[in-house]
Amino acid sequence: MNDAQQNQPAGYVPPKVWSQKTTYGGAFGSSNRPVSGATFEKALPIGKHPLQLYSQGTPNGQKVTIMLEELLAAGHTGAEYDAWLIDIFKGDQFGSGFTEINPNSKIPALVDRSSDPVTPVFETGSILVYLAEKFGVFLPTELQARTRTFNWLMWQMGTAPFVGGGLGHFYAYAPFKIEYAIDRYAMEVKRQLHVLDTHLAKNEFLAGDQYTIADMAVWPWQPGSLYGVYNTHEFVGVEEYVHLLRWYRAIGERPAVKRGRVVNRRSDNPGGFLLERHDASDIDAIVPTTAR
Amino acid sequence: MNDAQQNQPAGYVPPKVWSQKTTYGGAFGSSNRPVSGATFEKALPIGKHPLQLYSQGTPNGQKVTIMLEELLAAGHTGAEYDAWLIDIFKGDQFGSGFTEINPNSKIPALVDRSSDPVTPVFETGSILVYLAEKFGVFLPTELQARTRTFNWLMWQMGTAPFVGGGLGHFYAYAPFKIEYAIDRYAMEVKRQLHVLDTHLAKNEFLAGDQYTIADMAVWPWQPGSLYGVYNTHEFVGVEEYVHLLRWYRAIGERPAVKRGRVVNRRSDNPGGFLLERHDASDIDAIVPTTAR
Repeated sequence: MNDAQQNQPAGYVPPKVWSQKTTYGGAFGSSNRPVSGATFEKALPIGKHPLQLYSQGTPNGQKVTIMLEELLAAGHTGAEYDAWLIDIFKGDQFGSGFTEINPNSKIPALVDRSSDPVTPVFETGSILVYLAEKFGVFLPTELQARTRTFNWLMWQMGTAPFVGGGLGHFYAYAPFKIEYAIDRYAMEVKRQLHVLDTHLAKNEFLAGDQYTIADMAVWPWQPGSLYGVYNTHEFVGVEEYVHLLRWYRAIGERPAVKRGRVVNRRSDNPGGFLLERHDASDIDAIVPTTAR
Repeated sequence: MNDAQQNQPAGYVPPKVWSQKTTYGGAFGSSNRPVSGATFEKALPIGKHPLQLYSQGTPNGQKVTIMLEELLAAGHTGAEYDAWLIDIFKGDQFGSGFTEINPNSKIPALVDRSSDPVTPVFETGSILVYLAEKFGVFLPTELQARTRTFNWLMWQMGTAPFVGGGLGHFYAYAPFKIEYAIDRYAMEVKRQLHVLDTHLAKNEFLAGDQYTIADMAVWPWQPGSLYGVYNTHEFVGVEEYVHLLRWYRAIGERPAVKRGRVVNRRSDNPGGFLLERHDASDIDAIVPTTAR
């Protein structure tokens, strides 16, 4: 058959200039738009701590709450924070207060109110670097270890869109199943898992012998999100990657990780999650204190 | 119709466990694999300078050669470099020497031979931070400007996969056209362009009044890659985004940008490009010296 017949749907030919069609359905089908900016006026709440987090407990949200709990566990009391829920299923990320601190309308976003003017921080990689530099931990200063940390942190920033926006979308969220797209992203995710598995066969942590923000960034995504939100762990055969799993389980046993991963998650999820966090005691009520 | 009939192709149902099929064709269809690692033995060449770059002049490659030329233009003679071509269309990225420095098999990768042991740096974001910290420029130290630089640098790392791996792939590289996927990524790329356009209406550069590594990271991708490799500028209506274009053109006029963007590009491209760069004079032969 000719090219256009092979297209999906058959006969489809891209127009010269793209224009928005009616929604395709699927998760987020109605909230995706070709423009940015606020769609309604709403100020953000402000709590008692200098650090104000606006987030949801997705893999990206977990990166930051794990980091904040690691900072607190390490004795950095300045890392106390208020974590407010931005419910992306309800479109909270398009409120004027949120777009003012993150014009990209993606969670999480952090505001540090200890400076004047306050400092808005967005993109998980930026938030992790910001907090690591503010408190002087989890981002080595020694050149080789620092470089390895940035190598793997940036690797995570560039690979996660293939896990979430790629495989996760086409496998779990799209309104119908497209074989080519699912194959494309399953292959890429398996390649990523193999990259990590090979590296972690020779290294305790991603940057070598130190636990860093690179581990905190990767853990919720590869393989965390495959077990969780996208339910693709069996599809991509996560159990094959034994060195990756060794690392995944070891980090999962860290008290701060157990605490961080429950924050800003909806209560209809199993396991006890909390919508907002304003004090350590909010988490104590869910995660056994012995886990601290 | 029922769900499976609506799937593409009709009746497609994902298997319980994914397995690799024969190739789908399209650009890179034969080199994509679900595993990582070297497929053949080949040592990397080493030139005369401490900085050895292994790259190709794709949008990701351009980020780094632009930075290196900016450093040289600013008088940092320690940034002299050898740039070797890793031809990704021929699979050079799967050679043993390359995978040793970047287990992820993606260009560009940099080796700094001024340290002992040498320092491998991979992922463009990591290379940009490494060079900025090594030479003390283009990454502000003042907290607010530094945070804005990381915000936008990380934004770029997380959005480019939707431009290249998303729209670029499905519009230009996939073996047939899939309407849903093209729509999905065209909408997202337009949203990204609008985010930048809105921000650049109020700011000279991404981090405010200073030119930083965030600008160098975004420029080759949004909108650079849409004009270039993917030829989608008309499809997504780049000309609508006048503030983005003001910034794009201003940066494009910088002598170091004119120089950096020609490096490691195949000579069958129009405009005069060079496969390797080992000395400033290699570029002088192509880009008029007055552009320095």
